[in-house]
Amino acid sequence: MTDLRGGIDLGGTKIQTVVVDETNAVLGEARHPTPTSGGPENVARAMEDAMREAAAAASVKAETLRGVGVGSPGDADGATGVVSGARNLPGWEGSFPLGEALTKALDTEVRIGNDVQVAVEGEYHLGAGRPFGSLLGVWWGTGVGGGIILDGKPWLGRGAAAEIGHMVVKRNGARCPCGRRGCMEAYAGRAAMEAKARREQAAGVETDLFKIMERRGRDRLTSSVWEHALREKDPLAESLIRRAVRYLGTGIASACNLLDVEAVVIGGGLGERFGERYASEIEREMMKHIFVSDNPPKMLIAELNDLGGAIGASLLITP
Amino acid sequence: MTDLRGGIDLGGTKIQTVVVDETNAVLGEARHPTPTSGGPENVARAMEDAMREAAAAASVKAETLRGVGVGSPGDADGATGVVSGARNLPGWEGSFPLGEALTKALDTEVRIGNDVQVAVEGEYHLGAGRPFGSLLGVWWGTGVGGGIILDGKPWLGRGAAAEIGHMVVKRNGARCPCGRRGCMEAYAGRAAMEAKARREQAAGVETDLFKIMERRGRDRLTSSVWEHALREKDPLAESLIRRAVRYLGTGIASACNLLDVEAVVIGGGLGERFGERYASEIEREMMKHIFVSDNPPKMLIAELNDLGGAIGASLLITP
Repeated sequence: MTDLRGGIDLGGTKIQTVVVDETNAVLGEARHPTPTSGGPENVARAMEDAMREAAAAASVKAETLRGVGVGSPGDADGATGVVSGARNLPGWEGSFPLGEALTKALDTEVRIGNDVQVAVEGEYHLGAGRPFGSLLGVWWGTGVGGGIILDGKPWLGRGAAAEIGHMVVKRNGARCPCGRRGCMEAYAGRAAMEAKARREQAAGVETDLFKIMERRGRDRLTSSVWEHALREKDPLAESLIRRAVRYLGTGIASACNLLDVEAVVIGGGLGERFGERYASEIEREMMKHIFVSDNPPKMLIAELNDLGGAIGASLLITP
Repeated sequence: MTDLRGGIDLGGTKIQTVVVDETNAVLGEARHPTPTSGGPENVARAMEDAMREAAAAASVKAETLRGVGVGSPGDADGATGVVSGARNLPGWEGSFPLGEALTKALDTEVRIGNDVQVAVEGEYHLGAGRPFGSLLGVWWGTGVGGGIILDGKPWLGRGAAAEIGHMVVKRNGARCPCGRRGCMEAYAGRAAMEAKARREQAAGVETDLFKIMERRGRDRLTSSVWEHALREKDPLAESLIRRAVRYLGTGIASACNLLDVEAVVIGGGLGERFGERYASEIEREMMKHIFVSDNPPKMLIAELNDLGGAIGASLLITP
């Protein structure tokens, strides 16, 4: 066995893997598309392949890794390795023993964690959060996920903590993709923003968002579609991004009034693309609602970027 | 020195003191009105008198107590014993070294904590929260305060955590006594409810709330004024209490989506009076917004009542 560890970031569109050494330096990496059909077994096989490819890039066999950590969407049970209700993965509405399947396939220890939580732990140990003891991660993407570090340790509650996207920022407000009303994600999540853009267009508001989407061969409003629409100064795109930013700031303030953490790290697909640009606006909105305003949390942008989820996952295996 | 400890709950209208033994049984207690004029020195002297009276009731001298814990409003610094910005106490806008003053006066160790936090710790160790490892206390009174216990330990953040009353439940919503908009306290705090009742009456809405207030010789809408108005089925009182309950439920759900604690304990002046009666309504509102709804937190009402704050404060001294 080597001192190397594997990390897998399992996303709805891609599977990112890394092999890191004991200093957390990346020695090999690979990226495969996530299967869009079949079921959890298919996804597990694609994960195995991607992990083996990263190991080969690091000139080792996957079996010699000390272990492999996995950041998974859905309800990921760290104790049992079972992942349930991963609705953005094919045929994964139910439960699947992902940890067991990968342990068998890779013949090494496999540990499963929540995708956002492991990415936030990556930022805490190796990225933007290094100088701080307590941290709130806000992962701004299709939804808005969260991760909490208190006194240097993850706070998971009973397994369902850090759902910052479903904090209520406007009682009786907009309908959220989760079915409830007024969640922060109902304004700031990419899926909700796309639904709102479609409703506005249907109501006669002019926008190039969907033309840009088609021109770029996409079937949904990806981060890069939003980016291009902003570059073209599309008014609806600008107004929906600004709206998202306002509600992000409000929700972050609410969370910080409860947790009083030292810092907030913004990550996720939209966060990586737009976080830097809108950080001061998010902060300005946050400050309107921070109760003890002479000592606000630091507002940071995730540093580990594309590999952050996989590197964070590798930390599930004790270095 | 004895094995007995003192506890002082410093409130805007009363100072409640207790002496407890090593099993936390109350051996003596006293209650004095909080001075309404003078300054922090006056208040400290009244606290000394009330503490001595409780000690006498327990047949000991205050000087023989192992120590005295104090739950204080305002910004109470546990490390230095300094209390700042206690705006509901006379002449206490600035800072006063309350710990030092009481240590000198009582000639024993004195520890200072936040009033709501020590009351919540009391419920955690000795009251409704005993069966649980993680807890959110929601103190429903003039304002809405909070206290957080995670993994058996208080979470204080950098000293400003648990401000659940200032979580934003309605962006651009009602003006809060704190000056911000849409805070939960803007709907559920007694001060905000009274301000709203006055505005409604001025706008022509009929209500007996202020008649009841005068009849009972009060100059503000105390819990008992609300109680009487509800008994008389005053429509404005009913509608404002129901509105408070809805926003409490929403804010609690928001906090629980972030913290995923095992239980919520409702306390405070209005909480003690109305918590039992409205618990199921608060819970129903909460459930509309709880993200992982198959495992909601237990909803409990504080058990220690009038003496809870002082008993909780006594726990600041290690038994």
